[in-house]
Amino acid sequence: MDYSKLVNGGLAQLKPYQAGKPIEEVQRELGLSEVIKLASNENPFGMSPKAIAAAQAAIVNCHYYPDANGYYLKQALHERFGYDPASLTLGDGSNELINLIFQCFANPQVNVVMPELSFIVYPMEATVAAATLRTVPLKDYCVDTDALLQAIDENTRLVVLANPSNPAGTAIDYATLKAFVKQVPEQTLVVIDEAYNEYQESAFVDTAKWIAECPNLLVCRTFSKAYGLAGLRIGYMVSNLQIAALVNTLRAPFNVNAAAQAAAIAALQDTEHLAHVVKVNNAERKRYAEFCKAHQLFMIPSAANFVAVDFKRDSLPIYQYLLERGVIVRPVKGYGLDTILRISIGTPEQNDKLFALLGQYLQENPR
Amino acid sequence: MDYSKLVNGGLAQLKPYQAGKPIEEVQRELGLSEVIKLASNENPFGMSPKAIAAAQAAIVNCHYYPDANGYYLKQALHERFGYDPASLTLGDGSNELINLIFQCFANPQVNVVMPELSFIVYPMEATVAAATLRTVPLKDYCVDTDALLQAIDENTRLVVLANPSNPAGTAIDYATLKAFVKQVPEQTLVVIDEAYNEYQESAFVDTAKWIAECPNLLVCRTFSKAYGLAGLRIGYMVSNLQIAALVNTLRAPFNVNAAAQAAAIAALQDTEHLAHVVKVNNAERKRYAEFCKAHQLFMIPSAANFVAVDFKRDSLPIYQYLLERGVIVRPVKGYGLDTILRISIGTPEQNDKLFALLGQYLQENPR
Repeated sequence: MDYSKLVNGGLAQLKPYQAGKPIEEVQRELGLSEVIKLASNENPFGMSPKAIAAAQAAIVNCHYYPDANGYYLKQALHERFGYDPASLTLGDGSNELINLIFQCFANPQVNVVMPELSFIVYPMEATVAAATLRTVPLKDYCVDTDALLQAIDENTRLVVLANPSNPAGTAIDYATLKAFVKQVPEQTLVVIDEAYNEYQESAFVDTAKWIAECPNLLVCRTFSKAYGLAGLRIGYMVSNLQIAALVNTLRAPFNVNAAAQAAAIAALQDTEHLAHVVKVNNAERKRYAEFCKAHQLFMIPSAANFVAVDFKRDSLPIYQYLLERGVIVRPVKGYGLDTILRISIGTPEQNDKLFALLGQYLQENPR
Repeated sequence: MDYSKLVNGGLAQLKPYQAGKPIEEVQRELGLSEVIKLASNENPFGMSPKAIAAAQAAIVNCHYYPDANGYYLKQALHERFGYDPASLTLGDGSNELINLIFQCFANPQVNVVMPELSFIVYPMEATVAAATLRTVPLKDYCVDTDALLQAIDENTRLVVLANPSNPAGTAIDYATLKAFVKQVPEQTLVVIDEAYNEYQESAFVDTAKWIAECPNLLVCRTFSKAYGLAGLRIGYMVSNLQIAALVNTLRAPFNVNAAAQAAAIAALQDTEHLAHVVKVNNAERKRYAEFCKAHQLFMIPSAANFVAVDFKRDSLPIYQYLLERGVIVRPVKGYGLDTILRISIGTPEQNDKLFALLGQYLQENPR
């Protein structure tokens, strides 16, 4: 029989995920000895050596279940940011937190508002929940908070946005963001996904502190980006206590593995490593801007660890050219951006290689 | 406002999960220098040293995302058991696989059939989905497959059972199980949770091979128990290709961390370690049976790495007596079993300590 007829919501409308082959397999097939991956916005400097040591030490005791409540990590987050541990929910990456929020709150009777060019997981989750999706146009690749407000009505259950955004990389200034959050009606939950938050130029403003005034605000953060723990899968959400209790009830008790918890605590405490990662990334981001200016390419202003570059021509041949020479970047055709490539900012040496290859391509293929 | 009014299905009916404190905190509070945990059916022998080494090596590259498709682990499962990689779904523990199955297929319009004393996650997930729950009585603590069949009707979407079961620990013989699966109508999915499968006395029968004849069968397995990877979170499901594609679509691409994938491959290949773990466990299980017989206690016949012992009196004082002396076991009052304690089988030395303490308690507190 056709089992797709038995599935809930809009799941059967989604295409099965077509995962890429591991990098080692790609290397083998293309006959390349070295491949640089600038495709998934990973941290090219690695996690803190203290986090590596903590995770490796935790492995030895991994025949025990992880701490279901993340006691010590929540204590560490309390010490660092002042959060009430009961306001925190830990996720298997912040991706799982997004999944849980939609599973809790989205359904066919409500609508979900989000900006155009939102991280692909949000519209997928809205489809799974069979919620009505309202996509709001951007203004110069930036989230238009006025337009978001206009799209919200009494049936809007969730408004979800990433700040900085992905794949565009733009950020909303904090004053505008706060004014927006305060105007959203209390029955509409505002989810701010701050996966790339640490890379902003502006001084850190803790949006999670606004929850005291705005109980409908949920802030998701991850250890996958600036902290470099992508492979270990860990993120956290700050919310009001009732929402935290509800999402924690849905969450599987052992969703976050013990190595990730240990590494996250150490990573959080190694502020020096974090500062170094951000400093080099942001200096390299300036080099990308200079490279694009020199080559008359349009780079969307980025506040993240990646840049979206508009080549003003089909970007797939450029992607292919780079791939064959051992540099993997990300085409964003899936978002309808045929002329853009999203490039994760690498180490200075990796970026040098990319600049050289791109320069060469542009010389060989003048417009 | 009351945000519990906005949540989907039956989630608001569930109590928030009350996680226990970490073992280190319990030690500090009770002033105990050593605590033995025989409460969560963990593997007291640890994972294979090869798995530890593989996980520790993987940590170094955990600034990269994990392989979204589990390519190498699926290859290893193919080599070991012959499964088509496309029939496999990897989970953040088999707990996540259960979550995904319910999220895909359970809803308020269908019913879900399961035996009494099912692993607590199944009825919780049925409640979250607001599906009708049909609980079928056991026969001498064993799953009664005839009664299960009678409970299934045209609206039964899922029948879920663990074999061996938890918290009872009993197993169904394979001939009975196969006859049962073949009689379930094709629109009802049969989920067999084989978390404790490796500990059975009988020779291994690969139930997943029945999927060729029974496309409605889903088999879930975990690396948390006999393989000793509980803290790393990894399990897998074998199903027909269409169901695998559907569940993989719902699954977050990076749900299984890289350390767990590396450890699972190594653990799967270290058949010697697995055989040792099972051999010692099963020998110790016999010692538990002898101890219970000698002290006129009823032990439910176990095919797993734990035993459920009926003290025929309130078991909480016994639990408390053991706890104060540094041995944590599991009361199962939540399952309505007030006179039973579930005890995970430890190392021979840990079991010696438990036997001594229990013997002492029974002598001090004759019936």
